[in-house]
Amino acid sequence: MAATGWPGCAKSLKGVILDMCGVLYDSGEGDGVAIHGSVEAVKKLKASDLQLRFCTNETQASRETFVAKLQRLGFDISVSEVFSPAPAAVAVLKDRCLRPHLLVYDGLLPEFDSVDKTNPNCVVIGDATENFSYQNLNEAFRVLIGLEKPVLFSLGQGRYYKETDGLKLDVGVYMKALEYACDLKAEVIGKPSPTFFQSVLSDMGLQPHEALMIGDDLVNDVGGAQHCGMKGVQVRTGKYRPSDEKHPTVTADGTVDNLAQAVDMILNQRH
Amino acid sequence: MAATGWPGCAKSLKGVILDMCGVLYDSGEGDGVAIHGSVEAVKKLKASDLQLRFCTNETQASRETFVAKLQRLGFDISVSEVFSPAPAAVAVLKDRCLRPHLLVYDGLLPEFDSVDKTNPNCVVIGDATENFSYQNLNEAFRVLIGLEKPVLFSLGQGRYYKETDGLKLDVGVYMKALEYACDLKAEVIGKPSPTFFQSVLSDMGLQPHEALMIGDDLVNDVGGAQHCGMKGVQVRTGKYRPSDEKHPTVTADGTVDNLAQAVDMILNQRH
Repeated sequence: MAATGWPGCAKSLKGVILDMCGVLYDSGEGDGVAIHGSVEAVKKLKASDLQLRFCTNETQASRETFVAKLQRLGFDISVSEVFSPAPAAVAVLKDRCLRPHLLVYDGLLPEFDSVDKTNPNCVVIGDATENFSYQNLNEAFRVLIGLEKPVLFSLGQGRYYKETDGLKLDVGVYMKALEYACDLKAEVIGKPSPTFFQSVLSDMGLQPHEALMIGDDLVNDVGGAQHCGMKGVQVRTGKYRPSDEKHPTVTADGTVDNLAQAVDMILNQRH
Repeated sequence: MAATGWPGCAKSLKGVILDMCGVLYDSGEGDGVAIHGSVEAVKKLKASDLQLRFCTNETQASRETFVAKLQRLGFDISVSEVFSPAPAAVAVLKDRCLRPHLLVYDGLLPEFDSVDKTNPNCVVIGDATENFSYQNLNEAFRVLIGLEKPVLFSLGQGRYYKETDGLKLDVGVYMKALEYACDLKAEVIGKPSPTFFQSVLSDMGLQPHEALMIGDDLVNDVGGAQHCGMKGVQVRTGKYRPSDEKHPTVTADGTVDNLAQAVDMILNQRH
């Protein structure tokens, strides 16, 4: 019988999903910096028999721009391996014949080039930062309140994140604002939405128990993956905090110092 | 035994509290316009043996500026008769030795002149409109998240209101945003907070059953007053909508066409 705990479960794994910011690199000035050992760890995974995908809630750049940055940091990574909320949203919009009013970061707009945005019948918000002006939020609100059945998509539901100049409000805060204004519940696209994880599994052609998620966000990465039936391992880099190891509702299957350590443990189990 | 229904209850009344916007006047270009019959109705109340106070959630101007506008519209009204959230907030801040970081409309700032704002240990938000920029909301967030016990005061909790150029997001929307960002519950100052209505009753020296609230907002005016033990009558002016008369949780003690009709009915009962 296969071991179900960490790292024993690695024996029967067929795929690994990696969070990006806080696992591969730390954001900051310019491109940010690769986390020690992560470039090499990705190389080792690619050389193994495991499938590999990257899964991020990044909504401040198109995947092309974002992947180019990771490549400059030394990572062997391509656009087709990266899952982020905007392309997932585009798929949903097309599937449901919805035309979005967009309130997103300027750099994300190219992801929506192929979508009809005339006469909008839904609203999509991302981490728009400075674009979250009173006027822009009011405009999104007026679109929603004018619809018979208002539909709001939120690319993630984070509260805040850290940048070099301090904490910044994330998209979830504005999602809550519009939910209250219009008395509705937003549809979240991105981690920890099960639909989002499922789309990564489908792309690999794997069942949940055959895949492992590695992330620095206990609730969105680890908890979200576990909720889908995957194993979830947390790294002590990025937004990890010691209190995560005593979290009231989410317990990681394993906690490791960094991605390099996680990958070595996985590959050791398989030899 | 005294009649308890409307308008019979008017026989035993000792005081009346009037909402302002939508009852006395409609906002719009410049000062807006007095609602037909309201100037005369206020005169009649003042000539009666009833006490009279005005109770508003207005937070876009100091009471001085606001009352001067009402006087220009023809109303016999003075600052000491008007209860609005900002002065109530100032009283709470002083009582609890709190120093606010303010995110309010520029015109409201004079209300807080007497308050120490150095090294803030709480945040006060009002209907700040354009001042609700990403940067300003982030600044308020950083103050809160940096406090050991974050305290957020919201001057009202409205979702939105109507101006001549369309619907505008109200303070409650940003209250929800900061509540989610900081995982806290704001303290609402203004209608429908019981503390706020109680301060008006205290000023008149009356018990709740001796006072009647007249407003156009079913939930905040009528429901709020009823929650405190007062009677609540709704006028069919301002933000009144026919669906209010079939509201699932709030039923007005009476519904009248406008303030003039309400006042005539009250005074007729007393002669």
